Formats: sequence, C-alpha cells, structure tokens
Amino acid sequence: MASMSPVGAYRHGGRLREAAAAFPHAPTPWLDLSTGINPEPWRGPRAAWSDLARLPDPAEIADLERIAAGAFGVDDPRRVLATAGAEAGLRLLPAVIGGADVAIVSPTYSCHETAWRLAARPVAAVSLEAAFEAVASVLVIVNPNNPDGRRTERAALLDLAMIRSRSGLWTVVDESFVEASPELSVAGAAIEHLIVLRSFGKFYGLPGVRLGFIVAEPVVIERLQALQGDWPISADAMAIGRAAYLDETWRGQTRERLERDAHALDKLLAAHGLTVIGGTSLFRLISTPSVSVLFEALCEQGILTRPFQDAEDRLRIGVPREAGLARLAAALEGLKS
Amino acid sequence: MASMSPVGAYRHGGRLREAAAAFPHAPTPWLDLSTGINPEPWRGPRAAWSDLARLPDPAEIADLERIAAGAFGVDDPRRVLATAGAEAGLRLLPAVIGGADVAIVSPTYSCHETAWRLAARPVAAVSLEAAFEAVASVLVIVNPNNPDGRRTERAALLDLAMIRSRSGLWTVVDESFVEASPELSVAGAAIEHLIVLRSFGKFYGLPGVRLGFIVAEPVVIERLQALQGDWPISADAMAIGRAAYLDETWRGQTRERLERDAHALDKLLAAHGLTVIGGTSLFRLISTPSVSVLFEALCEQGILTRPFQDAEDRLRIGVPREAGLARLAAALEGLKS
Repeated sequence: MASMSPVGAYRHGGRLREAAAAFPHAPTPWLDLSTGINPEPWRGPRAAWSDLARLPDPAEIADLERIAAGAFGVDDPRRVLATAGAEAGLRLLPAVIGGADVAIVSPTYSCHETAWRLAARPVAAVSLEAAFEAVASVLVIVNPNNPDGRRTERAALLDLAMIRSRSGLWTVVDESFVEASPELSVAGAAIEHLIVLRSFGKFYGLPGVRLGFIVAEPVVIERLQALQGDWPISADAMAIGRAAYLDETWRGQTRERLERDAHALDKLLAAHGLTVIGGTSLFRLISTPSVSVLFEALCEQGILTRPFQDAEDRLRIGVPREAGLARLAAALEGLKS
Repeated sequence: MASMSPVGAYRHGGRLREAAAAFPHAPTPWLDLSTGINPEPWRGPRAAWSDLARLPDPAEIADLERIAAGAFGVDDPRRVLATAGAEAGLRLLPAVIGGADVAIVSPTYSCHETAWRLAARPVAAVSLEAAFEAVASVLVIVNPNNPDGRRTERAALLDLAMIRSRSGLWTVVDESFVEASPELSVAGAAIEHLIVLRSFGKFYGLPGVRLGFIVAEPVVIERLQALQGDWPISADAMAIGRAAYLDETWRGQTRERLERDAHALDKLLAAHGLTVIGGTSLFRLISTPSVSVLFEALCEQGILTRPFQDAEDRLRIGVPREAGLARLAAALEGLKS
C-alpha cells in the first residue's frame, strides 16, 4: 500500500500535492478534509490591478482594522492589528511579550510551541485545569481548541485573564476557530496583558488570502506594528477583508449552514461506527483504533484527512459540503466491503 | 498654503490618502511619484478563487522559490526563501544573525535601522568608504542605494563580503532596486555570511502583492523558514510571482523601457534647472534649495514626490510613463509663471 510520509501527513493539513504524489492512483480532484476551513468561501470584489500596482496605504489598513474591530465586538480600533494570517501574528508575540516561561494548554495547534521555542523561551504543556493555577509568564490557550474543539466558557476565561493580569502575567487566546461560536470570544474585553488572535481564512474559507488579526492593548499593538512594518498585508487581503467583515448577513447564514453540515457529518460518521469526540462546526475529531488504515483508505479515494503523530487513535476531518459528504459516504461504504 | 504632516510625507512614499486630505483641491487622480515603483506593471493570470480557498501548498511555494532562483542567477534553490515583501524579509534578519553591532551604509532606506534597533542591536551609520574597513558584526548595504542610486560594483562587494566572512562577519545586501541593473547583483554568489534581499514589487510594479525573497546559505534559510512558518505569502503572490519571474521577454523589454523613461525625466528636470544627483531607472534624486516649495507646489497639482526629513535639499521623484511625464512637465511649467 502506498503511504504518505509522516512529515507531510502529520505536520499540517493542506499538503495536497504531497498526498497526490503518495497516492498517484487516487481519483482527482482531491477532496481536502485535512483542514478546518469552510469549504464554501465568502465571495466578493477582489483588489483591482491598480491596487496591486501601489503600496498598501496605511490609511486603508486602518480602515480594515476598524471594520474588523466592529465585527469582533472591539470598541477601540487601536486595539486591532492586521497581520498576514493568524500564523504570522502568533510568531510576532515572543518579541513583545516579556517574562520567561510559557505554558500552553495542550494538546493543541503545534505552532504556538514552535514560535516560543524558536524565541528560546521554556515551554510547558499544561492541562486546562492546571492552566487555572499556572504561574507561567505567558499562558496560551486556543479557544475553541484545535483539534478537539474543547470550549472554555467566556466568563471563566475572562476571570482567568484578569487574575493573571493582576500579577503581570500574560494570557494569549487563539480564537482562530471562534467565528463559528462567537459567544466564546473574549476579543471585546479590554484586559491588560490579554492578547487575542483572530484568523480570517478559516471561517471565511479564504486562507490563501493570508489575513489575521491581533487584538491587544494599544501600547502592545503599537510595538507589534512597528515590528512588522507599514505593509504587512496584500491589496487582496485589504479588499476582501473589508467587504467580508462588513457582511453580517453572510456571517449569520454561514454559522447556521456550518452547524447543519457538521451535524450531517456526525450522522454519517456515527452510521459507520466512528466516534466523534469533539470539534467545531469547521472540523470534527474522531477516535478509532484503526486511524492509519482509515487515513490511507480515504487517501486512496482521493480524500485527505488529518492524523496526529502524538495521538495515534485520532483523526481530524474537515466538515464537507453536500457533494463532499456524499463522496466521503461512498468511500466509507466502500471500506465495509 | 496647505501642508502635509511631516510624518506622512517623510516616513515613506505611497501615502496618497494623507496627501489628498492635505491638498483637497488638487486635481485627481493623484500622480504618485513618491515611490520607486515601475508604473507599468507586469500583467498576467492571478490566483483563482479556488487558490484563495485553500492554504498555500508548501510544494508550490518551493516552485516559486526555484523559479525566482533561476531569475536571480542562484544555482541552488535551497538558498532562496519567499517572504511577504522585502520589508518582511529584512525584519526577520535580527532573529537569525548573531553578533552584536550593526553598521549601515548611509544615508539609505530607513527600515534597516528600524529593524535592528527594535531588536536592541547597536546601530551605526557608516559611509561606503568606511564600510570597507568596518568590523561591525553586521554590515548592511543597499545596492543600488535608495534614495541616491549609489552603485557599488559587484566585484568590490563580493571582495568585501568574502573578507568579512573569513572573520565570521555578516554582510546584508539589499538588492530591492537591482532588477533594473542586474549586473550589480551578488545574489548568485554562495558566500558564507552573505545575505541578499530581493523585492518583487518595485521592478514588476506590483507592491500590493507583497512578495520578496531572502537569498542566503541553506542553513540560514532553514532557520528563517522555521521562523516565518509554512504560509508566508498569499495565493496571488504565488500565482503572479511564478509567471512573472518566468517572463524573460518582459524583463528585458522593461529594463530598456525604464532606461528610456528615466532619460526623458532627466531631460525634463534639466530643462527646469533641477539637478539630478543620482538614482536608478525607477527613481531620480534631485538637489534643490527650494524642496519644500517644489514639493508643495507639485502636491497642489496632484503630484506626490518624496522629501526627506534629514536632507532638506533633496527630493526623490519616481520615473513616470509618458502621460505622467507630460503632467509633471505641465506642473513644472506652471511654476515658472
């Protein structure tokens, strides 16, 4: 049986070309369920060639940040900084957050650990329960969490951030997947030492645009802005971001549609004896002893999912639209025979 | 007379919205000659919506880097890293270049100093002559230089980089404007401790795409890549960059056309008694005692140029195409009366 190199399959989702090379006989196009990206993206006007032909105007970036602040429930737009994706944002943090050690509520998205380790900061994995007792200079928590969808309620998180702040301790909340459950967001709370990361690409289904945001105290935002310079994002990110964050109707409809699609996926998985142990309406995490067999069998049907090196019984499956769900259903049906 | 805030006019070129607010009666659209960006951009296919709707595939970024390496005359594509603009690239350097002090051949583009100071490194301005004697851990040289177009010949720069490398000293060559004078480039030289920065936006006329490159030893590139993560650039940057760097015909024709346009600008400026003291075929630097009068008078005609806070007798003027040149000619003619 063909197999995909562990590096490719385990490192991140979205490595379709590597998958296609490992499974050359799989039907194309591939169905990419290896990420938690909305498969039905927002659509609207893109940047014109005339916008590509000039430097992004800082005044226009400020416009985008003001609009995004409105969408996040942030009163003061000086608290919002646009970055070339949430990933670019989290990698800026070690340069502006003082203190020594970092506690990361784990298991979670691996790049938080990567970013702090590259900055030579000692990093420890903690459980959510231990997080509430943690005295590390920096606490990182992804909410809702990736890959298991674990939710930390807003009130509890605000308490935690406030208590930590009184001792000068930082709390970083990665809300990359919060757009589908906005009631969890703490972005609107102006707490000192609280930093919130937001992603555009996942909920809006446009990760290729590279757009994300950091929400923090204005003095922190100023330092981050100086660090990344005047032109962090592309003309396309500005044009698409500004229009999409103003589109409340699409946002509401999309939240409802994603919920429906996630329930349809749950039903299909349950019918095939696959236990969903968590997720958000953008992805589900299943637990099964036969992950490697299932992963490779789906690859042979041109369906890429996301296994984890350090959790061999877990598989993350992006929530597909109807056509994708039908293809996944046929593939799972084929496995029975 | 209306006036543009010093922050806006002095900080960078391209702040058109601020200029338009300061000179509300200026004819529109503005002619932006405040940058050194080719006013006739490369055109070709952009990323499709389906590319925006997925994460940039690392294999495709590697393709772009291989193609760019070819265009830069770099044999080993592992020596090339794509970044979201040359600006994003230079800001990554302090994290991977060891040593203490930094010497910057000055006057030059101000963000080099900004980036190293933000990383708490002591920075000194040095002359080009002093650069050849400098023992600073890091030497930064922009070639050709911005804003004066000063050229350092390739052979001299290679000697300098090699001598410094023997003592473990780093040389950073910012070749953001080299595309129009490729004979100056040292990107193809595999010298330890030599780092070259390249910009896509200026010569190709598409700064809104946000694309640049770092050329360095593979071991340095690996560290930089780990720092910036797997998705540094947008789908548009990949699509446009790959096609543009393969377009040798356009590159050759554009070099010739830029030369012609620069000579036409020189002729116009000379006819109005304005002395060109340097430049590249993307911009010219003039010296005149009446910079502030000239700058504001051009603003009133809707033409934005670039003054400098620390050199009050200098004005940088982007090289316009025919229509822009005619408009500049009319504005200069109007100043006489």
